[in-house]
Amino acid sequence: MPELLTLYTAKVCPFAHRVELALAEANVEYQSYQIDLTNKPIWYASKVNPVGKIPAIAYGGPRVPADQPSPQSFKISESLVLTEFVAEVYADANLIPKDPVQRAKVRFFMDAAANKFEPLFFGYTFTGSVDQAGLIKGLEEFQTLLPKEGYAVGEWSIADAVVTPFVGRLFLALENDLGRYPVGEGPKTLEIIKTDPKLERIRKYMDDVTSRESFMSTFDKPPQPSSVNIGYSYTTNRSSRT
Amino acid sequence: MPELLTLYTAKVCPFAHRVELALAEANVEYQSYQIDLTNKPIWYASKVNPVGKIPAIAYGGPRVPADQPSPQSFKISESLVLTEFVAEVYADANLIPKDPVQRAKVRFFMDAAANKFEPLFFGYTFTGSVDQAGLIKGLEEFQTLLPKEGYAVGEWSIADAVVTPFVGRLFLALENDLGRYPVGEGPKTLEIIKTDPKLERIRKYMDDVTSRESFMSTFDKPPQPSSVNIGYSYTTNRSSRT
Ligand SMILES: N[C@@H](CCC(=O)N[C@@H](CS)C(=O)NCC(=O)O)C(=O)O
Ligand SMILES: N[C@@H](CCC(=O)N[C@@H](CS)C(=O)NCC(=O)O)C(=O)O
Repeated sequence: MPELLTLYTAKVCPFAHRVELALAEANVEYQSYQIDLTNKPIWYASKVNPVGKIPAIAYGGPRVPADQPSPQSFKISESLVLTEFVAEVYADANLIPKDPVQRAKVRFFMDAAANKFEPLFFGYTFTGSVDQAGLIKGLEEFQTLLPKEGYAVGEWSIADAVVTPFVGRLFLALENDLGRYPVGEGPKTLEIIKTDPKLERIRKYMDDVTSRESFMSTFDKPPQPSSVNIGYSYTTNRSSRT
Repeated sequence: MPELLTLYTAKVCPFAHRVELALAEANVEYQSYQIDLTNKPIWYASKVNPVGKIPAIAYGGPRVPADQPSPQSFKISESLVLTEFVAEVYADANLIPKDPVQRAKVRFFMDAAANKFEPLFFGYTFTGSVDQAGLIKGLEEFQTLLPKEGYAVGEWSIADAVVTPFVGRLFLALENDLGRYPVGEGPKTLEIIKTDPKLERIRKYMDDVTSRESFMSTFDKPPQPSSVNIGYSYTTNRSSRT
């Protein structure tokens, strides 16, 4: 029997979503536990992740319920570290290529997803530090990292798992006009992304990653747009730019 | 004959130093090329690293001189990605353990070295955003990541390569009283680090990493302290805190 893997996660969290994508692509059984970020269980910081954040994984040890973590399991956090861990524990799933050159490309892309794409998303939809022109320019630049066809390094890999949650949440925020930009700008920005010839390659890529089964099975589109929660509250953030 | 590996580096750069440490520990032949950061060769951005930063590696392809990079070699940058690349290309050197759990610990430590230790160093010695108390507290916190004995995960690994350049430069800056803190504070801070009982574990660790052959062969202590260059100019930064 394989070791028990427990993922501490929350639907709204893009970082946790990275790990859910890797696990979905590996197509393995695991135990998933939703952490309520507004009311975290007291045992979580003391028994799983001292800094209290999700995602985190408990791996191995006795087969215990997720809310009774064993001191004997290995606990680890940080989404990028976790996606690599999933790729290595379930090596047969080929979530990362075997060749060192290809692996370096995966890690370079992961770094860019975390340090370039992620700040674009947060900057445009959450803090307001990136405006529409900055977002479009950033997407154009990010696009240069993509190969002519396929995913980040050709075949799907954990590189794609790192960026996909932010692609999904960007689309969702724009569709619902949620973000720290002027009212009504979201759908217009989405229209640019969907039609601008300069963005052809990244548009194809963003469509590719968000139409994968692993994405659709792990990303809940909320039933009522007005209650969209993409991990951060938007309702009170509007004032500064409208 | 193994593939040619060329490292584009600069003595002063702590990021490049990470990769030099990994290569020294792997004990392999490679071609090293010093980039003058104040006057970068024009071919560097177009032929090696489009963002113009060091470190970068060219790997494989024809055996060309470093200043005539071949379009056929693989080019890659980002120091953390590069240390993993070195560990994988020279797998026999065991720069990273084979077990997925141990590897996850290595990567978690690398992340902390880059996102916790590195900002402590820059904050105290360069920007002034971290004061003496903050530095000491940060070191105490970082210390909790260390196992009871040995290196970051027991045996030396690329986790240690990521933090060591910043340990060496922190000591050097403090010894020479270079940093954005009040004049005379550097040596006093060093004295605290060298004697405070609360810092016993990290002190041992910092001594261990900086007394390794790989560190001593890759880190030049400048002959005249007044000309110390630890990758950033300190001479003009004093005003704001003195
Ligand atoms: N760098 C972390 C970030 C994780 C993170 O910020 N998670 C958020 C939820 S999206 C969290 O747990 N916040 C709760 C808290 O900070 O207390 C990673 O990549 O895993
Ligand atoms: N994130 C990069 C940082 C590298 C970096 O900032 N290198 C500096 C020298 S220490 C550099 O090349 N600066 C030149 C420039 O930015 O033009 C890494 O980890 O490799």
